[in-house]
Amino acid sequence: MTYCVAARVNEGLVFLSDSRTNAGIDQISTFRKATVFEREGDRFITLLSAGNLSISQSVREILQSHSIEDEQTGEPLTLWTATSMYDVARVLGSAVRELHQRDGQALREQGVDFNVSMLLGGQIGTEDPRLFQIYSAGNFIEAAPETTYFQIGEAKYGKPVLDRILSSDTSLEEATKCLLVSMDSTLKSNLSVGLPLDLVVYRTGQLGQAHILCLDEDNAYFKYLHNSWGPKLRAAFDAIDNPVWSLESSAEHPIARTQSRFSPLKKVTQSAGSTAP
Amino acid sequence: MTYCVAARVNEGLVFLSDSRTNAGIDQISTFRKATVFEREGDRFITLLSAGNLSISQSVREILQSHSIEDEQTGEPLTLWTATSMYDVARVLGSAVRELHQRDGQALREQGVDFNVSMLLGGQIGTEDPRLFQIYSAGNFIEAAPETTYFQIGEAKYGKPVLDRILSSDTSLEEATKCLLVSMDSTLKSNLSVGLPLDLVVYRTGQLGQAHILCLDEDNAYFKYLHNSWGPKLRAAFDAIDNPVWSLESSAEHPIARTQSRFSPLKKVTQSAGSTAP
Repeated sequence: MTYCVAARVNEGLVFLSDSRTNAGIDQISTFRKATVFEREGDRFITLLSAGNLSISQSVREILQSHSIEDEQTGEPLTLWTATSMYDVARVLGSAVRELHQRDGQALREQGVDFNVSMLLGGQIGTEDPRLFQIYSAGNFIEAAPETTYFQIGEAKYGKPVLDRILSSDTSLEEATKCLLVSMDSTLKSNLSVGLPLDLVVYRTGQLGQAHILCLDEDNAYFKYLHNSWGPKLRAAFDAIDNPVWSLESSAEHPIARTQSRFSPLKKVTQSAGSTAP
Repeated sequence: MTYCVAARVNEGLVFLSDSRTNAGIDQISTFRKATVFEREGDRFITLLSAGNLSISQSVREILQSHSIEDEQTGEPLTLWTATSMYDVARVLGSAVRELHQRDGQALREQGVDFNVSMLLGGQIGTEDPRLFQIYSAGNFIEAAPETTYFQIGEAKYGKPVLDRILSSDTSLEEATKCLLVSMDSTLKSNLSVGLPLDLVVYRTGQLGQAHILCLDEDNAYFKYLHNSWGPKLRAAFDAIDNPVWSLESSAEHPIARTQSRFSPLKKVTQSAGSTAP
């Protein structure tokens, strides 16, 4: 598996991907899952991919020369000529479909799903930055103010912290920190996700000049975050009172004081003296 | 789906289950997933179940009268006559297999997996408390000092906090709090897990007298925990420095200072003046 996450906040876009690829548990490799497409002053686009590696690699290759027809002008539309990120998402979706036409049947015959999912985000010209998630069928959805992030791959471990922290108002620095914490939790709980991490942080309107970093186990900030988060989470946990069983307790919120409106748990008993069965 | 989690610490056993069952997203019901078997002074056993509801309900029903042959005495061994939790796990595994014989083929013909997983823990006589996870094939594994907890159902969201907090030395109260935090994170991120919760807290050696509570949205302690954890997690998050991009920064751990040993991210560029494609 893999884990990729991207967020769109008012200040810009943040992309983070791990680099572990595995086929079974004894064939583990490092493959980078992020690609940046840039024409300075005009467009800045980042693509993250998960799923079958042969599919995601080929889609990325096809994408670079792939075109669809512009419905208004009849001209070919590519990732470099599209005037909106929506059209870039369409070009990418079409590239996925082209590969499906080429490889889908042969994969099916071998019992392999045509499984790929991608996160695509960026900015073109004066349009606001946009973020999309593209599925295996080449269809896609877009992030919105109420849903500011997308995840692909091993998404569940790192979801709670995103749900609690991220909103459109989150600063670019905080969003970066939040994605790194989400990744750190995933790294801790799932072996199929591994370092190094690729991080792309893009500030709205810059059309280039993004922070593009590869974080390995020696990165000063990631080491600091990794070493801080565990103890701080522990301290937050310790700051919550333990449950108090006694009803007579003077504790503020004893766990047993409230009578539940549900029936008691099913309990099957035998008296102490009974013989069985 | 559902979420059940159980922990074995030195002081005893803690079991926690939600009560949501869904078939698709528009058929949601409340079914309790915990059962307690008790003969005071002799044995205290708790069973949590996940998977296909028709299977887990039937297994629980079968279990109550099911027996296997004791290899040494030839006598029938039931949940009430077994002298070790290991043998109770064998009786439960055998009950799963009996149901598989009865329903497995018919389910397969309808394209339904024989899918059930259970957590079984308790204490019999002077034996130490033990905790088992039982699979669909009736086979099982046991928790050990290095791996003190088992989860079934929607396990991923709530795993990071267990990995960071739980060990054999964790007190019974702290373990209870930890399982509740794990459940709270899961409730927040996955709609297929829902209140009320069934909580069973058993102290080693008591052979009865466990705390058996049903926690709904009005429970004073769960409300307190739910309302505290979000803000405390947020405060822990805020206490970690944001990343600093600048290399010249006086910050202790700027994210860009360390040179990664990996190659820079793949970047496809076009010069500003180029025409496409």
